[in-house]
Amino acid sequence: MNGTNSPRVDDNELALLTDLYQLTMTQAYWKESMQERATFSLFFRKMPPNRRFMLACGQQHAAALLSRLRFGDEAIDRLAGTGLFDPGFLDWLGDWRFEGDIWALTEGTPVFANEPLLEVDAPIAHAQLLESLMMNLVQLETVLASKAVRLVMAARGRPVVDFGMRRMHGVDAAVRGVRAYRTAGLAGTSNVLGGLRHDLAINGTMAHSYILAHDDEREAFRAFARHYPGTTLLVDTHDTLEGVRKVIEIMRDEPKLGVKAIRLDSGDLGELAKGARALLDEAGHDDITIVASSGLDEHKIAALIEDGAPIDAFGVGTQMGVSADAPVIDLSYKLVEYAGTPRVKHSPGKINLPCRKQIYRQVDAQGRYVGDIIALRDESGISGEPLLRPLVRAGKLDDDEMARADDARERVTDAIERFPEDIRHLAEGESAYPVELSPGLERLQSRT
Amino acid sequence: MNGTNSPRVDDNELALLTDLYQLTMTQAYWKESMQERATFSLFFRKMPPNRRFMLACGQQHAAALLSRLRFGDEAIDRLAGTGLFDPGFLDWLGDWRFEGDIWALTEGTPVFANEPLLEVDAPIAHAQLLESLMMNLVQLETVLASKAVRLVMAARGRPVVDFGMRRMHGVDAAVRGVRAYRTAGLAGTSNVLGGLRHDLAINGTMAHSYILAHDDEREAFRAFARHYPGTTLLVDTHDTLEGVRKVIEIMRDEPKLGVKAIRLDSGDLGELAKGARALLDEAGHDDITIVASSGLDEHKIAALIEDGAPIDAFGVGTQMGVSADAPVIDLSYKLVEYAGTPRVKHSPGKINLPCRKQIYRQVDAQGRYVGDIIALRDESGISGEPLLRPLVRAGKLDDDEMARADDARERVTDAIERFPEDIRHLAEGESAYPVELSPGLERLQSRT
Repeated sequence: MNGTNSPRVDDNELALLTDLYQLTMTQAYWKESMQERATFSLFFRKMPPNRRFMLACGQQHAAALLSRLRFGDEAIDRLAGTGLFDPGFLDWLGDWRFEGDIWALTEGTPVFANEPLLEVDAPIAHAQLLESLMMNLVQLETVLASKAVRLVMAARGRPVVDFGMRRMHGVDAAVRGVRAYRTAGLAGTSNVLGGLRHDLAINGTMAHSYILAHDDEREAFRAFARHYPGTTLLVDTHDTLEGVRKVIEIMRDEPKLGVKAIRLDSGDLGELAKGARALLDEAGHDDITIVASSGLDEHKIAALIEDGAPIDAFGVGTQMGVSADAPVIDLSYKLVEYAGTPRVKHSPGKINLPCRKQIYRQVDAQGRYVGDIIALRDESGISGEPLLRPLVRAGKLDDDEMARADDARERVTDAIERFPEDIRHLAEGESAYPVELSPGLERLQSRT
Repeated sequence: MNGTNSPRVDDNELALLTDLYQLTMTQAYWKESMQERATFSLFFRKMPPNRRFMLACGQQHAAALLSRLRFGDEAIDRLAGTGLFDPGFLDWLGDWRFEGDIWALTEGTPVFANEPLLEVDAPIAHAQLLESLMMNLVQLETVLASKAVRLVMAARGRPVVDFGMRRMHGVDAAVRGVRAYRTAGLAGTSNVLGGLRHDLAINGTMAHSYILAHDDEREAFRAFARHYPGTTLLVDTHDTLEGVRKVIEIMRDEPKLGVKAIRLDSGDLGELAKGARALLDEAGHDDITIVASSGLDEHKIAALIEDGAPIDAFGVGTQMGVSADAPVIDLSYKLVEYAGTPRVKHSPGKINLPCRKQIYRQVDAQGRYVGDIIALRDESGISGEPLLRPLVRAGKLDDDEMARADDARERVTDAIERFPEDIRHLAEGESAYPVELSPGLERLQSRT
């Protein structure tokens, strides 16, 4: 098993991370000389029950990776070993480079059901080869960003920090997820590699084990604060308010330790924060802030704030790390056009929108978003801001679009605030924000 | 962004995938010369609401990786860049090799709340450095195996195949998850890299896009079956039973195509399977089997079988791929002993079991499991099969234990069948299977 216990997936193996049928269908297209251009649309059919919008994320990130996807020699050898593929096809696959176009929402754009997050226009085999990995990459970041932004909204300006690496689904989710968190507006992460890679501040406090390994809590606080002046001390190992008193004592003895914050990680966080705040203030430490963690989600954070709990920052892990109340979206990557003609599967009760499309976000005179129109991409006369932008052209990544994705974090808050207030509600329910079809798309859809 | 869009995490970066406090606490232990041995216990406090047992998975896999974890030069440089660490400590970290012991359940062992999945005994800094990544790795495989085994149980001997790669959380979950699926007894996967790496059969059918890209469904079937004699054809793109009739026609014209199966992927799967079966049988094709997919979970599979649906194999994706009804377990890695003395955090309403432990699984005369006893590891006089086995000793992996993990798949079904019937029920609820504390552990716990 030694060969397989590393979670490393090299770039030259990544093309094998696909569903087998993508490769067998691609070989079939190759054998049948089917090389016409196809359009595939990536979208989800319905909002998850606990989301009023999704924050599209991962499209630029995935496109950057997929536009340079290759089947390396070792990948080709392993496919040859399956006995399913002709040598001629494997030669073609070894030379394959993505030659198509990708139009995509910029990361950090709020998106609703049936709106394409991206569309791929390419010779059919090229578009098919991207499907499985594109879906995996875009879904992960979109699911995590869409959950994280709810925590940011709930905290109403107070910093929210990711503590969830240990309970995320594997190594890649833990690293790449931090990118989604950055876009969503988190203030920091405890995850060292994720923070370093994706340029989010790395934060850390201490664990109960550090306190327990010392015979005396006060000595543990003093030792840690001497190693790290200006640190955050975890006060709830034995008795929270006793812990706060010990922090006050070590600060009285050695003010230069400059303890910056205390952290509560169990019990009734609201009551304990009030008690801790009173003790700290009474001792003249109104500059020491209070960080709370322990099974928090957006509803608990909103309730704590509503209740006036004097908590200055929140650490969140488990619920956010897997987006526990909506860990998956029903993402589809559907063929919508081939050889210039619309193609849609007949699915009773399901909407399948044919052809290449554009989304127009309507803006009123005050700059507020008042509704989306999904239209045919080349349909004229539709007002509003077009949301799908060319990201890859003939296999080449657009550098400006990539740079826009890097700045996504700066635009998210503004974008969300321009929507009607009900998309920002945390309670279960649907937003009344209207998403409509254009006349052209409506006509085409009823025809196909 | 080009430097960071690959999901590759090299082995020499992997040590940075941790929470910052693990590194700051470790430096604090180093500065304080705290080198006594500590025991940390990995367990979960309560069963998720929809699980009657969890299938422990990933411990051997994680131990193999963690026993050779290193902070490479680049990792050390990046840590130096944070300004938090002393040069002397970074030298120590660069030379660090795990020197401790790990006792663990063999993968594929059913496990219940408060039972350790593994325990690490090591100088405290060593045990602390494993925490975050160990939790991430073990949780993922345990969560996925525990969901997958429910689908296997629901299918009552019919093959269950993983189609979920596209909706799993990132690259690592998609690859490593297949290992958990293999342990849980899945028959195959559509995931090429996952199947190749973790030795599970790779299966594939075709997508609606292939049918839609052809002008005629019958011609699409014929072309695909000629490329792949003995294949599975997807019959529901336009009208399922019409699709079945077309399969019968192409088989009448060219029997050597040897179509092996048809796949249903939408609509009322039970009714359509009955209709398809009748058409196939009437045409003399009782050897063509029926594969069903489309939003399946264990409850839908059980209901289809209960209803007599003539479905021979199931393809499952979304619900299984993220373990949607229980995507996370409340896994803890707690210090339980340091310098030879028990250490536990005081947590009202929570059980924290001190010291090194062993789990004994009691067997009756018929070989049935009748209850577990969690005991102190060196407590004598407890009958039953000891479940925690030495896997790493002084940093060295035990090859026999690793080999046992490779065979886990073969033991899972037998193990599950030896439990009382109620652990195999799929409905929400708790099993009455008793998990008790030994007299020695009970005494120690009430004392600490």
